[in-house]
Amino acid sequence: MFVRNCWYVAAWDTEVGREPLARKIIGENVILFRAEDGTPIALEDRCCHRNLPLSQGSIEGDAVRCGYHGLLFDAAGKCIEVPGQRNIPPGAEIRAYPLVERWQWIWIWMGDPAKADASLIPHWDCMESPEWAAAPGNGRTPLPIACNYELSNDNLLDLSHVAYVHASSLGSPGLSDFPVETERFDDRVTMTRWAFDIQPPPIIAKYCGVEDNIDRWQSSEVQSPCHVLVDVGFPSRGGGREARGNKLAPSLRVPISNTPETETTTLMFFCQTRNFSIDDDELTKKVQNDFLRVFYEDVSVLEAQQRIYEEQPDAPTIDINVDAPTIAMRNLNKRLAEAERAA
Amino acid sequence: MFVRNCWYVAAWDTEVGREPLARKIIGENVILFRAEDGTPIALEDRCCHRNLPLSQGSIEGDAVRCGYHGLLFDAAGKCIEVPGQRNIPPGAEIRAYPLVERWQWIWIWMGDPAKADASLIPHWDCMESPEWAAAPGNGRTPLPIACNYELSNDNLLDLSHVAYVHASSLGSPGLSDFPVETERFDDRVTMTRWAFDIQPPPIIAKYCGVEDNIDRWQSSEVQSPCHVLVDVGFPSRGGGREARGNKLAPSLRVPISNTPETETTTLMFFCQTRNFSIDDDELTKKVQNDFLRVFYEDVSVLEAQQRIYEEQPDAPTIDINVDAPTIAMRNLNKRLAEAERAA
Amino acid sequence: MFVRNCWYVAAWDTEVGREPLARKIIGENVILFRAEDGTPIALEDRCCHRNLPLSQGSIEGDAVRCGYHGLLFDAAGKCIEVPGQRNIPPGAEIRAYPLVERWQWIWIWMGDPAKADASLIPHWDCMESPEWAAAPGNGRTPLPIACNYELSNDNLLDLSHVAYVHASSLGSPGLSDFPVETERFDDRVTMTRWAFDIQPPPIIAKYCGVEDNIDRWQSSEVQSPCHVLVDVGFPSRGGGREARGNKLAPSLRVPISNTPETETTTLMFFCQTRNFSIDDDELTKKVQNDFLRVFYEDVSVLEAQQRIYEEQPDAPTIDINVDAPTIAMRNLNKRLAEAERAA
Repeated sequence: MFVRNCWYVAAWDTEVGREPLARKIIGENVILFRAEDGTPIALEDRCCHRNLPLSQGSIEGDAVRCGYHGLLFDAAGKCIEVPGQRNIPPGAEIRAYPLVERWQWIWIWMGDPAKADASLIPHWDCMESPEWAAAPGNGRTPLPIACNYELSNDNLLDLSHVAYVHASSLGSPGLSDFPVETERFDDRVTMTRWAFDIQPPPIIAKYCGVEDNIDRWQSSEVQSPCHVLVDVGFPSRGGGREARGNKLAPSLRVPISNTPETETTTLMFFCQTRNFSIDDDELTKKVQNDFLRVFYEDVSVLEAQQRIYEEQPDAPTIDINVDAPTIAMRNLNKRLAEAERAA
Repeated sequence: MFVRNCWYVAAWDTEVGREPLARKIIGENVILFRAEDGTPIALEDRCCHRNLPLSQGSIEGDAVRCGYHGLLFDAAGKCIEVPGQRNIPPGAEIRAYPLVERWQWIWIWMGDPAKADASLIPHWDCMESPEWAAAPGNGRTPLPIACNYELSNDNLLDLSHVAYVHASSLGSPGLSDFPVETERFDDRVTMTRWAFDIQPPPIIAKYCGVEDNIDRWQSSEVQSPCHVLVDVGFPSRGGGREARGNKLAPSLRVPISNTPETETTTLMFFCQTRNFSIDDDELTKKVQNDFLRVFYEDVSVLEAQQRIYEEQPDAPTIDINVDAPTIAMRNLNKRLAEAERAA
Repeated sequence: MFVRNCWYVAAWDTEVGREPLARKIIGENVILFRAEDGTPIALEDRCCHRNLPLSQGSIEGDAVRCGYHGLLFDAAGKCIEVPGQRNIPPGAEIRAYPLVERWQWIWIWMGDPAKADASLIPHWDCMESPEWAAAPGNGRTPLPIACNYELSNDNLLDLSHVAYVHASSLGSPGLSDFPVETERFDDRVTMTRWAFDIQPPPIIAKYCGVEDNIDRWQSSEVQSPCHVLVDVGFPSRGGGREARGNKLAPSLRVPISNTPETETTTLMFFCQTRNFSIDDDELTKKVQNDFLRVFYEDVSVLEAQQRIYEEQPDAPTIDINVDAPTIAMRNLNKRLAEAERAA
């Protein structure tokens, strides 16, 4: 069960052009391409005549022609030409999806088009701000993960896992001894942890040349259903909270969107942004490579979990303290999806 | 749901010899081999003792011996030897299927053997006539397609697709503007289209050295459930119908049989025959290669359709004018299969 | 449906060490490792927090730490540490399985631990006796077979198949003309066949340099649910029974255990032991290689059978004389499994 009346990230902006891009989102096949003026277009990826995916056809102007019998569909999904006949049969149309291009990504609205509201897109200006250096993830393509998207949400809302999954890059001994604070909102959940006088994680020690103990914050904000902003910072020991307030500490902001492809597969879009050494292109490449490796560590965990959840859907599980935000987030998504269904 | 009381093409004649050939037809596993005198034999491919496929056994004379415990089955499917005991247990027999060898193919009757009537096999003498040069398809093996056989029937009954799927080889601009005529018979459906004063398709221009506009006919006859004769011709401009009547125009006759392997897979048998340059062996090779490439274009369409039909069995579709023959054909097959079931 | 209150072979002793080994047994995921003192430990391979397989974690002392959030489980399956909190949540435990290390194998009890009784393990001392040379099968790893374990039981209880499946190695012409004797016990079934004045099988002729006709016995004992001792011997012609009684004939004893991995896959553990040329290491290698090839012949049969049983679960089958022991064995397993369920 997915939330439908919401934005999902469908693609990186550079993935969509004058050739068809086929993508599956919450189980629906979508074709993405750009009109002649560059406007992105998303349609149901299925000719309503005999079900050939339109992504096997060709783009003509602002329309797409089916590769089987040549039916032509405009940007609104209306069939505007049937070769060999004058009349267009009634019902000859397919779904068109509202799109917004923002923060280097193409956002798609899978629910009622009348409700599409661009102001609901997360305000992730770090991806385009001159104060932040952006390191686009996975070569500007989504990272496919064979798991339900909520397992990835969980992973990102519960950063105590860095001590075990990413010990060699992001862990700090003792980090998970510091408590987690959860905040619940109508459309999102946030998790915050502060740690003080703690070893810097290896990856930050390397990037910033830090050796002494530091203060450290970890925060994740997940906007329903799957839009995550991880915000982590590494101020000097003793001045943590103040440095965060004054934007003086080296920090990373990582927009991540876990687009559900199906119930059991996810396309993860992500981009590491940082506020230090922002003109250092070598560092940007290092960040890209390092975090791709880090994310693959997560993939290995998430796909193994998924296999067990599929094999043993009724196996009993327990909760621990750090689960508060993930449980809140799952409840929020469930509530929203059920409310949509009921409506 | 398949029609059972009918012939299907099981194999090319050269595929069947003194070694077992395993094939699946309308979901049933069949072993094919030849008796010592060359007569082809088809049996259920399953030892009725412990279910080992007999195709893992060995041919002995006109019988096949199971590779597990050595039970021996004759050409009628009767077990005639159980090693280690004198008596043959009651019920020790498997199905034998009537076969006819004709037009380079082995035809199998999957229904009630008492109803097998060789006169129901399509009269495809172009495959053996001295007036036609035959270019056997796919190296005298069936082309496997991951789709239901009726999608392939559709494809061949609706040749307007050549303008889109085979634009670079068989298309003529404007071809689909000419109307299609459908005829319905008790056991078959035919489609005919005449086009006049039209560009020759690239492949024919190449084969026959034609540059000027021509007349052109396309016709398909599908005999239930899956036997297609595509008959296309390329007479000079102005004299089309008369040239066809007098057999003066260069033309291709293409027997094609879409043997259902399962509900979702098909084995396509095909052979391109032509009435021009019939002694030109180089051209025969060219025809083989060119049309294999053409058929792979169809495979790409058919398999993509199949995926969508499986994923979204209830997605709404519309019909267009050129669908009349394919709809008639599907109705005919459905009627015949249901009548068999009711009987 | 599996028998649960019984021992299964989980691993070769050398497969289990200080790194996690993941294995699936009767559908359950198990992690195997050794404590610091070498004692083998088997736990449910699933962290009860968020379902990550513990085999993706790390061994610490006699415990295993989950690779996701660091929960630590002791050898009894009890969670003894949750990083970041003092209390262990109620219910934080996973299953621990009784193990016994015997005859080079690790035996696991999948049912009620209170009923685990090491005396029920088959007495296969040939695997460790100085009078027998052991040739461990498949490089001291299990041979995976894509079939239900009872098909492999059948195969080993009905050695008349050697004439057809293993004609080039183990067959003797006429062997299956000699009758089979079946004995039924509460927990096992045995099959015995004596053949007299018969050609030696090719593999024995090669090993022992025998050319003349011999006497020959084949026997299989299957202890429920899947523990097979194949005992075959090749005494000189005329003195068969007496030679067997006096342990004078060259013979092979082959402990084999068909551990069910799932309903459709099996892990076969096996070890060829012999009482001749026991110090000949070259021969041991030859036996290993020869019998692995022989067992792959069985795999090919078993996996083909499995495919047919899955495709056509209701296809009618007949029984023949040599099936008496396999039918008895299947009935025994069924009776035991149903009695467990009823209890």
